[in-house]
Amino acid sequence: MEKLLENISEYMDDPLKNGAIANSLRELSPAELEELWDSLTSEQTLQLFLIIDQETRSALMAELNHSDQEFLLEGLSEQLTKDLLLYMEPDDLADLIQSVSSDVRENLWSNLTEDSRREIEFLLRYDEDDAAGIMTPRYGALRAEITVEQAISFVRRDMADKLETIYYLYVVDGFKRLIGVISLRQLLSAENNETVGDLMERNVIYVKDETDQEDAARVLEDNDFLAIPVVDDQLRLLGIVTFDDVIDVIREEQTEDIYKMGAMGGNTDSYLETSVFGLVLKRLPWLIILLLAGTITTNVLDGYSELTVTALFLTLFVPVITQTGGNTGTQSSTLMIRGLATGELKFRDLGKVLFKELFVAFIIGLATGGVIFLRSLYLPPGLELLEALTIASALSCVVLFATLLGCLVPMVIHRLGFDPTVAAGPLMSTVIDVCGLTIYYEIARLVLKL
Amino acid sequence: MEKLLENISEYMDDPLKNGAIANSLRELSPAELEELWDSLTSEQTLQLFLIIDQETRSALMAELNHSDQEFLLEGLSEQLTKDLLLYMEPDDLADLIQSVSSDVRENLWSNLTEDSRREIEFLLRYDEDDAAGIMTPRYGALRAEITVEQAISFVRRDMADKLETIYYLYVVDGFKRLIGVISLRQLLSAENNETVGDLMERNVIYVKDETDQEDAARVLEDNDFLAIPVVDDQLRLLGIVTFDDVIDVIREEQTEDIYKMGAMGGNTDSYLETSVFGLVLKRLPWLIILLLAGTITTNVLDGYSELTVTALFLTLFVPVITQTGGNTGTQSSTLMIRGLATGELKFRDLGKVLFKELFVAFIIGLATGGVIFLRSLYLPPGLELLEALTIASALSCVVLFATLLGCLVPMVIHRLGFDPTVAAGPLMSTVIDVCGLTIYYEIARLVLKL
Repeated sequence: MEKLLENISEYMDDPLKNGAIANSLRELSPAELEELWDSLTSEQTLQLFLIIDQETRSALMAELNHSDQEFLLEGLSEQLTKDLLLYMEPDDLADLIQSVSSDVRENLWSNLTEDSRREIEFLLRYDEDDAAGIMTPRYGALRAEITVEQAISFVRRDMADKLETIYYLYVVDGFKRLIGVISLRQLLSAENNETVGDLMERNVIYVKDETDQEDAARVLEDNDFLAIPVVDDQLRLLGIVTFDDVIDVIREEQTEDIYKMGAMGGNTDSYLETSVFGLVLKRLPWLIILLLAGTITTNVLDGYSELTVTALFLTLFVPVITQTGGNTGTQSSTLMIRGLATGELKFRDLGKVLFKELFVAFIIGLATGGVIFLRSLYLPPGLELLEALTIASALSCVVLFATLLGCLVPMVIHRLGFDPTVAAGPLMSTVIDVCGLTIYYEIARLVLKL
Repeated sequence: MEKLLENISEYMDDPLKNGAIANSLRELSPAELEELWDSLTSEQTLQLFLIIDQETRSALMAELNHSDQEFLLEGLSEQLTKDLLLYMEPDDLADLIQSVSSDVRENLWSNLTEDSRREIEFLLRYDEDDAAGIMTPRYGALRAEITVEQAISFVRRDMADKLETIYYLYVVDGFKRLIGVISLRQLLSAENNETVGDLMERNVIYVKDETDQEDAARVLEDNDFLAIPVVDDQLRLLGIVTFDDVIDVIREEQTEDIYKMGAMGGNTDSYLETSVFGLVLKRLPWLIILLLAGTITTNVLDGYSELTVTALFLTLFVPVITQTGGNTGTQSSTLMIRGLATGELKFRDLGKVLFKELFVAFIIGLATGGVIFLRSLYLPPGLELLEALTIASALSCVVLFATLLGCLVPMVIHRLGFDPTVAAGPLMSTVIDVCGLTIYYEIARLVLKL
């Protein structure tokens, strides 16, 4: 595959090999074409775009990044633009319209059919993070009175080449209210003369238009559905969210979670497309907050400055203590955050979880204490027995504290109705630095009887 | 929903309300039933399991955790076990067989039909992390010669109620080799007298049996497919992987990545089901590695011990320096790891990326330096101008270094063919602690002219 892509980009400009290349290009999927995109010059991408067939063209357009989209749209003739738009899904069209510059947008708008304009205006009314923001309004609807035979011929004649999916058919009443659902599979395995109303599932699982897209994704996922209907307050069917959009939502959620673990907020736009300023904006706020919170350690250390002078070896282990405390706290907070996110852990499990973490923390505390004891005794700089014992017991206590805090804080934040992900790695480490150092010096004072 | 579940668990034991509860239970999906599971006693779960219909029972069994599965299987009569197994998907059956204890397994095995046994034996030959490990062998196959009309009636008569999906139909030759694919949608929108061979897509996108499940998921996702075929070396069709299995793979991948960011390795089993020993095993190895690597800081600090004595204020900012260096390094390594994982970043982008990170690091370095300068000048413990300048310039340099290292290391690891996720947060922070402290003291020596 890699090889093929390279060959194509190499031979695109050679008129002799142009025909053969065009043929192999036609066989590539939109995803493969998109991969090829970066290795081509702007002229080559336009040339390629004109070679591929209409359906692939429309799918590819939906996948490309904003600047590539804009470049291609500026290069297309009016007729080609019209054809392109005709084949695109309304939800993709709505995204496209929003992302291009105002000049291109005006041009696109004038080339849309009346129907498409209405669909897009309808979709743009919703927040893009809501279920309605990712739905398509082109679903297959049936009336309950018709027979299986009528329904199948209706699907074959009017739906099969127009809708994003025909595999779930939604049954609506005269007010467009959702009253049932039937899969194409059920329809096909039924007898011709049965009615849709007899066969349909009446207990339809749906989401509301303002349901968060991540929650909608979870509902589809939990039920292994291909699509899930979106309804308004009057239970009127507005559209459907399909499994491929749900996969996109899950991927986006994944990126967001990983960014939070990496001390970043903000959008999940592609790295290469984000400007330097955008990258700074995503990273600096959290850094400054963590930096200011972290400087409390300066005051903590300042408070123990006589100890620093009388027992200088304590200072040497400060980074080890903070790092290990941070790591153990992060481990337990990560497990809690993940468990809460997947719904496996609930606040009512707190007792059980704390008890388990206490055990784990005890073992981990002993193990890490043992390791640092041997390390500081036998490797340079080489501590005295009492000194090594001080470091080891202090580390064990910090680990114990960090583990329990890492377990408790996300649970409590979740219980208060906030997103426990704020207690992910970076913030947890900073909090533990401050408390951990206090514990460290107090234990040291105790053991050394200072 | 929450309310309903609570009511059910409350009234399960009241014989008077039993009938009404049974009715509302029948309307719950397997996912909702599973949510209910934890709040019921063992006897209640068995009672509930017997109330619900056969199809829900089989779907629920596949969703439950190992110990619940085992408990139910031990409580079922032979006939009920037979019925349950008959309705389960072969991939779920294979998972079930592997997860139960040997006694239960023997009992299950004796209650399986000959066909199911053959299917399971076939599936168990493959690694569970490969595409073949998550496929179902029950796909819809057609021959190229038959007409659309024949194909539709074949689907209606023989497939609709037996297969996991009938929405993609795979065309195979006499040797079971995959030669084409046609969607049910295409079939339905075609004319009755066309043949499958005329209509089918010949350029089938497939994965090999030993393709990693995450790669298989990516192929399905990139192409927005409902299912993707799995073939062996001779291109013989072995089975299909469906979108719902792919969603599970993506979720598992998500958990794995988040665990790596949280300094944990090992399996992604549920927290509550993992024993204390299992939790320690998952967490301790990384902790010990990071602890030992982190103790290099002890030697670094020991090397600068005269500085510690002559300029005690430097010690006060050690945790701030290491924490901020770790955070900035983690930010850039997280962006790189994510970009490499989604395929957006390639090694050939290294120049572009380094240049961009250099700019970002410069701005972030100045900003964090400015903040710490003002903080250390005006807030307790209150430094002299030169001291504050020392801390600020040292922090800026550490931030610059950490950002570039965080960007470079994952790129290089990826280039060498390893998983860049090992350079995620925790390890990156530890490496930066060691280098960062050296930079810090050297800059301090320079500025203070010591």
